[in-house]
Amino acid sequence: MTSVSIVGGSGYTGGELLRLLLFHPHCSVKQVTSERFAGKFVQNAHPNLRKATRLKFCAISELEPCDVLFLCLPHGQSMGRIDDFRGLAAKIIDLSADFRLKDTALYAEYYGREHERSDLLDTFVYGLPERHRDAIGRADFVACPGCNATATILALSPLQRRGLIESAVVEVKAGSSEGGNASSDASHHPERSGAVRSYKPTGHRHVAEMKQELPETTIYFSATSIEMVRGILATCHVFLSSDIAEKDVWKIYREDYADEPFIRIVKERSGIHRYPEPKLLAGTNYCDIGFERESNSNRLVVISAIDNLMKGAAGQAVQNFNLMLGLGETTGLEFPGLHPI
Amino acid sequence: MTSVSIVGGSGYTGGELLRLLLFHPHCSVKQVTSERFAGKFVQNAHPNLRKATRLKFCAISELEPCDVLFLCLPHGQSMGRIDDFRGLAAKIIDLSADFRLKDTALYAEYYGREHERSDLLDTFVYGLPERHRDAIGRADFVACPGCNATATILALSPLQRRGLIESAVVEVKAGSSEGGNASSDASHHPERSGAVRSYKPTGHRHVAEMKQELPETTIYFSATSIEMVRGILATCHVFLSSDIAEKDVWKIYREDYADEPFIRIVKERSGIHRYPEPKLLAGTNYCDIGFERESNSNRLVVISAIDNLMKGAAGQAVQNFNLMLGLGETTGLEFPGLHPI
Amino acid sequence: MTSVSIVGGSGYTGGELLRLLLFHPHCSVKQVTSERFAGKFVQNAHPNLRKATRLKFCAISELEPCDVLFLCLPHGQSMGRIDDFRGLAAKIIDLSADFRLKDTALYAEYYGREHERSDLLDTFVYGLPERHRDAIGRADFVACPGCNATATILALSPLQRRGLIESAVVEVKAGSSEGGNASSDASHHPERSGAVRSYKPTGHRHVAEMKQELPETTIYFSATSIEMVRGILATCHVFLSSDIAEKDVWKIYREDYADEPFIRIVKERSGIHRYPEPKLLAGTNYCDIGFERESNSNRLVVISAIDNLMKGAAGQAVQNFNLMLGLGETTGLEFPGLHPI
Amino acid sequence: MTSVSIVGGSGYTGGELLRLLLFHPHCSVKQVTSERFAGKFVQNAHPNLRKATRLKFCAISELEPCDVLFLCLPHGQSMGRIDDFRGLAAKIIDLSADFRLKDTALYAEYYGREHERSDLLDTFVYGLPERHRDAIGRADFVACPGCNATATILALSPLQRRGLIESAVVEVKAGSSEGGNASSDASHHPERSGAVRSYKPTGHRHVAEMKQELPETTIYFSATSIEMVRGILATCHVFLSSDIAEKDVWKIYREDYADEPFIRIVKERSGIHRYPEPKLLAGTNYCDIGFERESNSNRLVVISAIDNLMKGAAGQAVQNFNLMLGLGETTGLEFPGLHPI
Repeated sequence: MTSVSIVGGSGYTGGELLRLLLFHPHCSVKQVTSERFAGKFVQNAHPNLRKATRLKFCAISELEPCDVLFLCLPHGQSMGRIDDFRGLAAKIIDLSADFRLKDTALYAEYYGREHERSDLLDTFVYGLPERHRDAIGRADFVACPGCNATATILALSPLQRRGLIESAVVEVKAGSSEGGNASSDASHHPERSGAVRSYKPTGHRHVAEMKQELPETTIYFSATSIEMVRGILATCHVFLSSDIAEKDVWKIYREDYADEPFIRIVKERSGIHRYPEPKLLAGTNYCDIGFERESNSNRLVVISAIDNLMKGAAGQAVQNFNLMLGLGETTGLEFPGLHPI
Repeated sequence: MTSVSIVGGSGYTGGELLRLLLFHPHCSVKQVTSERFAGKFVQNAHPNLRKATRLKFCAISELEPCDVLFLCLPHGQSMGRIDDFRGLAAKIIDLSADFRLKDTALYAEYYGREHERSDLLDTFVYGLPERHRDAIGRADFVACPGCNATATILALSPLQRRGLIESAVVEVKAGSSEGGNASSDASHHPERSGAVRSYKPTGHRHVAEMKQELPETTIYFSATSIEMVRGILATCHVFLSSDIAEKDVWKIYREDYADEPFIRIVKERSGIHRYPEPKLLAGTNYCDIGFERESNSNRLVVISAIDNLMKGAAGQAVQNFNLMLGLGETTGLEFPGLHPI
Repeated sequence: MTSVSIVGGSGYTGGELLRLLLFHPHCSVKQVTSERFAGKFVQNAHPNLRKATRLKFCAISELEPCDVLFLCLPHGQSMGRIDDFRGLAAKIIDLSADFRLKDTALYAEYYGREHERSDLLDTFVYGLPERHRDAIGRADFVACPGCNATATILALSPLQRRGLIESAVVEVKAGSSEGGNASSDASHHPERSGAVRSYKPTGHRHVAEMKQELPETTIYFSATSIEMVRGILATCHVFLSSDIAEKDVWKIYREDYADEPFIRIVKERSGIHRYPEPKLLAGTNYCDIGFERESNSNRLVVISAIDNLMKGAAGQAVQNFNLMLGLGETTGLEFPGLHPI
Repeated sequence: MTSVSIVGGSGYTGGELLRLLLFHPHCSVKQVTSERFAGKFVQNAHPNLRKATRLKFCAISELEPCDVLFLCLPHGQSMGRIDDFRGLAAKIIDLSADFRLKDTALYAEYYGREHERSDLLDTFVYGLPERHRDAIGRADFVACPGCNATATILALSPLQRRGLIESAVVEVKAGSSEGGNASSDASHHPERSGAVRSYKPTGHRHVAEMKQELPETTIYFSATSIEMVRGILATCHVFLSSDIAEKDVWKIYREDYADEPFIRIVKERSGIHRYPEPKLLAGTNYCDIGFERESNSNRLVVISAIDNLMKGAAGQAVQNFNLMLGLGETTGLEFPGLHPI
């Protein structure tokens, strides 16, 4: 039994992580912190966990040593306290953006300030198992990717590796949970319900991760918020540098992903679920990927879908945890999703 | 041209009222107040009014005399400033709860404090035209009913008048705009979206208005918040004091409501829109009413639907305005609603 | 390993059952029938099961013997073929309405025709474990309750047992999956989206089950369809025959349900999830129950929520399966639900 | 008073048109056809029109002469009967795709068959007033644009006119009413609710209109269905052929559109409605357009929103009607939309 604790456990990502770890057969959740809820039962923030646990939140200052520490703090806070956290656990999985980028210039460009602990950047592995599985398996420190970056990189990676991308226009459609659990005018239900809102037409921070993982690839990125709580759909308009037929696209994606436990190629000739749909992925760690080749142009549309709180955050963190501890990669992540939903 | 001003015009009710009055052929909007938005264009709070007006919000302290003053302040604020407002306009239409109740004991019971201006209660007419049309036509001061009260009273009134109600269990299903435009944890989209939430199983304040308007009638009231922005559906389980057949129920409702411009009896034998549905009423001033008589019991289920911001607030205020000024009752309220929506 | 097959496996209930049984540690799914999809992979009807199984649908005529047979046929079809099914398996769990009622007169009254196999009615146990756990444990044939009946009976049972109910008005709010997977004008998205539709103001068939399980209890029932895919919220306005305080209500529900693995009492003094909410139950087998005692009347409002496809259908079927086979009652039903969703 | 009739009036577009024309001050609706509903009140198909009219549907064979005939038939049917219709009315406004394209080769390419009446193509004016106002004013026959084409062409036209577009990737997010009022597996509420579904990653028919109206412009088009009933949001990633600053983009759009009654430039520095949002346009004839210039690239993101049934269909048809008859262009189209909604 591996003992784990969660730092910053009252938010949506922390709650999902707690849910997964409570039901994980090889770990035992020791502590979950929340400054706001310290002393209260975790079900105060996570009503789905009623009857599942009698854990209470504690303050960060009360943290005790454990085997693995998960960090779900707001962006910018992990780096400031990282030495404390390293004193508590030999292995750390950070779900924030703090240690994702290797290049401090890239960090400064996209986050608008200097990185405080650039000395540690090389010790963190970028936690996308489909690209860095072996390194994650050997790592003590893993930085989990952003949700938009996960969906985009997994969609484009097979093409990028083969040098097939001239440029790509990526448009992500995202649900409201992406914004976290703090209410605001923009998240007020009468305003947000039914909205299709251009959230970041240009300048999204996750582009930095795409640049790192897909070097030499020109990506134009936009994000739109739509009516949905969980889920991301990334539509990637890829302009191919050399002409390949749809059957070759099939071959490429099968080569790279047929053995991946959490990637499914979704491209049906008929029926109503012909391409990836995020609602079918709620609660799962899958990334579904489909594509359609435009005739008479060099465009290939690649479509990927994930649950932003799962494969885009907590689920991927557990996948990394499994790899770091040499456990079966899908342990605790078997939930297949609901239909209808 | 009647000059009108709106006090408290940045909220949802104020915005709807402003929309209606801007397009009303017999009035000219002079001023709209908002302390928070003073000096800014009204479209900052009401984006649907872009290009429709160049009005700016002003502070209450800047109000000038006008013919009719509409008050859309939060509950409890109209009564404190009412003398100032009476100094500005000969006619006042209050959309808050402050002057709805005639009985100060009832006010104290439901609002938890003493009424500050009980001397004025008799000067305000309860602004439900289907029950008090003549008095409204003669009134200088009108207090517009609450939305739940409007839906319930209009549903039950024909039966109550005839002494047919032994008791009634009323369950209102309401949308999120009922809670106003201030964001909160409860209105945060990921929490509120798709919710079916018992908002007030017992103890709703609007019951006080039902008691006043439907005396000698025992009403058990509950309110549930559901996924919807605008709209109220009131399901009224009426236990009849004497046995009447469904065709007699038809007769009663036709007698009372056939000539009412804003009430429609909705009870179809087939099709998908057999009973009232609030979504079809968005933007309209209609109250749709239907019913079904249970065989083998003394229960009659009466169903009413309104748009809480229209017939439940701003629309009814304009209907009262038309009556007070001797205009056609439906002036400025002709919008029939959208389908599909 | 218990071998199980599902008859009528292409619908929503059959799909949920298949999902649960595929991941159930003590059973192996042998066959799943669908006349429409025979020969096709189950993922054609259940896209969430992609990568989870390579099973194909077969025709009923191809069914082979197995240990336990689950019947998910449309109402009225199980009884006609029941002898065939009994020839295939020693234990049968029927999810349709065919064998729920013991009283043929009640069946005829609510289903509008004579029961074809009244000789078998006594052999089926009504599959509500919280009321008939021991009998289910000994049974070879179990008829699973309807979803509205489950939510209502579980909400009222503790009061009914103690003779505390004078009468009850029950209003169920239900999602669109209750209607099954066949499209219709009423389920067409532009019409059904955002609807609050009086589906059965009176005369719902599930009342028959309530009458059977809660004898001597007068129930007035209505059902309203709302914007939601999965879930039922039953608001039960109970008129008490003797005065009891809220703390005694607490005591009663705790006495009956504290040890029930799938019932949670949800009644918080603060926060946004103070009462049961169906969306938190999607995919779980929980029935959440809360209540509020009205001061100054004899009304107690009891609120219950379930996932209609889980505790209201497939989940309860698996719970019954576990009991019939002497397995841990919660086996395969541990999923705690998602938040936010 | 102009007498008008609607052919094919039971669908969503026909219903919206009927609503607009019933309330239009300068026309009188003579007949509305529906083969399926012939002899029934129009409210059977359009429940929002209860109490607004006592019109009944008639069969096409019963049509009498009128001043203007609106055609809302399914694509491919207007052209077959056009001679009959021309015999009935001097002016025809066709809302189908039949007479939009001037080039028969383009028609054949996108609609997969030869055009039956290519002799008439030149007599129809493409009914996009912002581009062809004068021609429409002189026309007897107008073909109204498709909804996706309207949103895209209005977004790109100012840039295209000035030769500024190198290429554009256009991604449209559309609601469920776009698919019409016939139910299907794909429109079944449990499947369609909350969906984000790649509807046409490539090969959408409306591209033909874009090619015609924006010649020499390379457009890559995709359409995604999202949770929404009405509305279209087109996100246009424009790759500029010459470098222009954001303030110049402002200037260009203001130059072309400042005087357009139905176009609003929406680009706020703060607040929650910074860019066009289709839900605010429900029931209006507006096309809202915004943009954001990416720094460090030649991309300009242009965002446009319309109500697909209004500016994308019935509203634009009435706008054309007004122009053809020399009426005020906004007559009958003054509704500003609702907020919140």
